[in-house]
Amino acid sequence: MQPIDIYCMANQDRSDRVRWLLEELQVPYKDHYLKKKNGDMNAPEYRALNPMGRVPTINDNGTVLFESGAICLYLADRFSEAKLAPELDSPERPAYLQWMVWSVGSLECVIARMFTHVSTPEETAVTHKFVKEQCEILKLALLPVLSKQEYILLSGFSAADIMLAAIIPGAWDYLVEPNPPIKAYMERLMARPAAIKAKVFEMPNP
Amino acid sequence: MQPIDIYCMANQDRSDRVRWLLEELQVPYKDHYLKKKNGDMNAPEYRALNPMGRVPTINDNGTVLFESGAICLYLADRFSEAKLAPELDSPERPAYLQWMVWSVGSLECVIARMFTHVSTPEETAVTHKFVKEQCEILKLALLPVLSKQEYILLSGFSAADIMLAAIIPGAWDYLVEPNPPIKAYMERLMARPAAIKAKVFEMPNP
Repeated sequence: MQPIDIYCMANQDRSDRVRWLLEELQVPYKDHYLKKKNGDMNAPEYRALNPMGRVPTINDNGTVLFESGAICLYLADRFSEAKLAPELDSPERPAYLQWMVWSVGSLECVIARMFTHVSTPEETAVTHKFVKEQCEILKLALLPVLSKQEYILLSGFSAADIMLAAIIPGAWDYLVEPNPPIKAYMERLMARPAAIKAKVFEMPNP
Repeated sequence: MQPIDIYCMANQDRSDRVRWLLEELQVPYKDHYLKKKNGDMNAPEYRALNPMGRVPTINDNGTVLFESGAICLYLADRFSEAKLAPELDSPERPAYLQWMVWSVGSLECVIARMFTHVSTPEETAVTHKFVKEQCEILKLALLPVLSKQEYILLSGFSAADIMLAAIIPGAWDYLVEPNPPIKAYMERLMARPAAIKAKVFEMPNP
């Protein structure tokens, strides 16, 4: 089959979850590394795929889409034989959707504050305090589930674990370190051969 | 059929899109208004439904879930006969997922900054500048589509329009006012009887 094109800047940007999922699905893909300094994000050919000039974007044999959470929802349903998404009529479908969207809408949205628009030391301190407080609230959803089961869905590993585990490390000191069940969950996921092959948890090149 | 329970604080919080969607789907629902000052968000009965004590949460005859984007994805698929979500194998499914997740993961995530954690006038100014700049980027995705079609999907109105139109007004001055096609889109959606019945665009009671 035709490989799926992934447009990214590095393996560790938000293309991480897409690449990891494709490794788990055993679907061939091809990385296209864009370089800001070369103007790749502004090139008309790339803007035709993603008008915002952001990453990741995928091209699945003519089907082009952006927004990492949407890409993963799409791919997990498209390659349904791998059973990384509960079927539409499965009793686990609601929880699956909940965690897929929570990971980007609630969790990543908070974590992203630490990485954008922080300039003075005072602002940095205020932002970290805010993120820490928010993580205390988010933990209330995550911890009870991960204290009683190995994966976010009772039936086992799914694309929702990929989304969560790709995002959680951004708040390692607040969300992972103080909470042994979340740390054990992260260690379990970081050890998956597909995550290692996709270099999700490697430090990016400078 | 058993009405779907919606837990919210007001019709204009993030339960807005859920209530609007249920009106469009013509599915009966029952609102449960929680009051912070009465401690309703911390009540054990509510924390059993949503451990974070946030809104909205729904209970669909025993199926409980939170995160507004996930709730709408779930409901639009569950009541598929209304055709507000393209089917799994539809060529419009990828775009549908893209806009559903983009609305919360990219758009609302930016807009929310104006409503949380802004204290001094200097911080407010910096935040507004940031949101305005981000909206200029987000507009690049939205404007070309809404300049050539009435709804975000070519085939017509869908749950993705509900998500977008419930969130876009938070950046009215940046995203709507200067862009006639987005303004026309908002006016089209605000005039829908289901949106009016759900009071999505009414000013909340003080």
